[in-house]
Amino acid sequence: MYRPEIKVLDCTIRDGGLANDSHFPLETVRAVYEACCQAGVDYVELGYRNSREMFDPAKFGVWRFCDEKDLRAATDGIEQGDTRIAVMMDAHKCDPADILPAEESVVDMIRVATYVKDVDKAISVENVAHARGYETTINVMAISVESDWELDPALEQIEKETHAVACYVVDSFGALYSEQVDYLVAKYQRLMPSREVGIHTHNNQQLAFANTIEGIIKGANFVDGTVHGLGRASGNCPLELLLGFLKNPKFDLRPVLDCAARTIQPLQKDIEWGYMVPYMITGILNQHPRAAISVLKSGSRDGYRAFYDRLLELVE
Amino acid sequence: MYRPEIKVLDCTIRDGGLANDSHFPLETVRAVYEACCQAGVDYVELGYRNSREMFDPAKFGVWRFCDEKDLRAATDGIEQGDTRIAVMMDAHKCDPADILPAEESVVDMIRVATYVKDVDKAISVENVAHARGYETTINVMAISVESDWELDPALEQIEKETHAVACYVVDSFGALYSEQVDYLVAKYQRLMPSREVGIHTHNNQQLAFANTIEGIIKGANFVDGTVHGLGRASGNCPLELLLGFLKNPKFDLRPVLDCAARTIQPLQKDIEWGYMVPYMITGILNQHPRAAISVLKSGSRDGYRAFYDRLLELVE
Repeated sequence: MYRPEIKVLDCTIRDGGLANDSHFPLETVRAVYEACCQAGVDYVELGYRNSREMFDPAKFGVWRFCDEKDLRAATDGIEQGDTRIAVMMDAHKCDPADILPAEESVVDMIRVATYVKDVDKAISVENVAHARGYETTINVMAISVESDWELDPALEQIEKETHAVACYVVDSFGALYSEQVDYLVAKYQRLMPSREVGIHTHNNQQLAFANTIEGIIKGANFVDGTVHGLGRASGNCPLELLLGFLKNPKFDLRPVLDCAARTIQPLQKDIEWGYMVPYMITGILNQHPRAAISVLKSGSRDGYRAFYDRLLELVE
Repeated sequence: MYRPEIKVLDCTIRDGGLANDSHFPLETVRAVYEACCQAGVDYVELGYRNSREMFDPAKFGVWRFCDEKDLRAATDGIEQGDTRIAVMMDAHKCDPADILPAEESVVDMIRVATYVKDVDKAISVENVAHARGYETTINVMAISVESDWELDPALEQIEKETHAVACYVVDSFGALYSEQVDYLVAKYQRLMPSREVGIHTHNNQQLAFANTIEGIIKGANFVDGTVHGLGRASGNCPLELLLGFLKNPKFDLRPVLDCAARTIQPLQKDIEWGYMVPYMITGILNQHPRAAISVLKSGSRDGYRAFYDRLLELVE
């Protein structure tokens, strides 16, 4: 009944790091890593390996840079099982010189995040990572605002010029409905026949888990989740829902439930994520959540209608 | 692009009443009713009309009984537009004698909720309601635990013996995935060709909105939502998401955004609803949420794994 090709990637620390400038205590990162290893999750993404030229180390936590020593501190002494370690590099905010030869690193996979306009940068980063011995993916962000005439040739280029095992549909704005997921997954399969399709969703419209399932039904084999849905703004597809849905007996839901209860849920004191109407408004209007984040920070919580009207003026 | 047959029903006060024993202040009910009228929502369900023999009026609020005088107090002086008023009667907990002739009532529609085992009671209540001049529906609860050999003849009976405009798939446990929604909607259409299919969802697995869309795609034309998803346990399909998705220009999202911000969100002080891991556990194990409600009330919030194991023992 299950499809053994499906690979689950946990990106709790990486995507959650967008909500707290990657300031996670070491014990939080270790707890997430250990839970994922115990649960049989295929990959754990422990942060970004981005450039110190682009992100001020005085402002951002160490999980924005994922130095080898920090990754070792997060993983040493924990039984890894078959779980592999990933980091993400933003094509336009990283330095390929930060990619060590794979044999000197605990990292197994490098995921290159990119906008369509930066696809050439992404391909060059991917090429370096592949040459240095890593498994790679390309993650195409903000897919809901890309037009076919720009996206299609970028996907064809990824098919021809990279060794990525998967290319992801990344619904950064939480704007996609199921029929758009179908359309994009089919497009990816058509234009990149030798790559797996990945799907990474956001929960602005409470569709993150549903769209991930929809991607799976249509053939996507790389799927992302985060414990308790932790992530920027409305957050992501909850890993515990994903493991509850998947039938592969190698997965054990229990360690993730513990991690959700003991490690992630208590973060709600300091980090606000989940369904909130301002994020739902940016989702339905296909906008970056930053506008909603600033409305929420202003404390003016009952101005939803005014916020909607203001945003409509920008998009109509 | 839109399907004019689709009817949206708001059941904020009715389903939300399961989370607070129907104790809403009058001004809350008026605000929800007014917002729905302004938004062009087709029906507003203002509570249950259940029996005082089954529910103690000392314990339950007036919206569990929906006496005519209370309904008038909730609606008088508010521009109704094309919005109609509904109440729900539980087949096994109501008294058909409480159904006034429609011309003496502000109620337009009576929805009869039932388990499959009580379908004969439901049909007799429906028959009285229809004879007294109301539009009716039958809402088949806990559909995720019904077997085909009991459900199918019940649906055939509803087709033959009632005048219900719609029969609902009610996912009381928030357990359905999209493929099960497809299966049930197709079954309803096959066995009840002269009835519309309705869908009412719960959000235990964050699939309430997605499953409602799935129902719509497959042809369901009666769809339920609640403002900000208010409802028992994880709550329901958020009305604001539903109106954001539907393309019928008669709907205006703005009044619902205001209601969410000013009327419903502030209730979070007193009523807890939304995504919580114990509810997710009852959802994936296809169980009534009451077990999770009691775990949450106990205050032992970090025993998710133990709760899961305990529930597994019951179902395996």
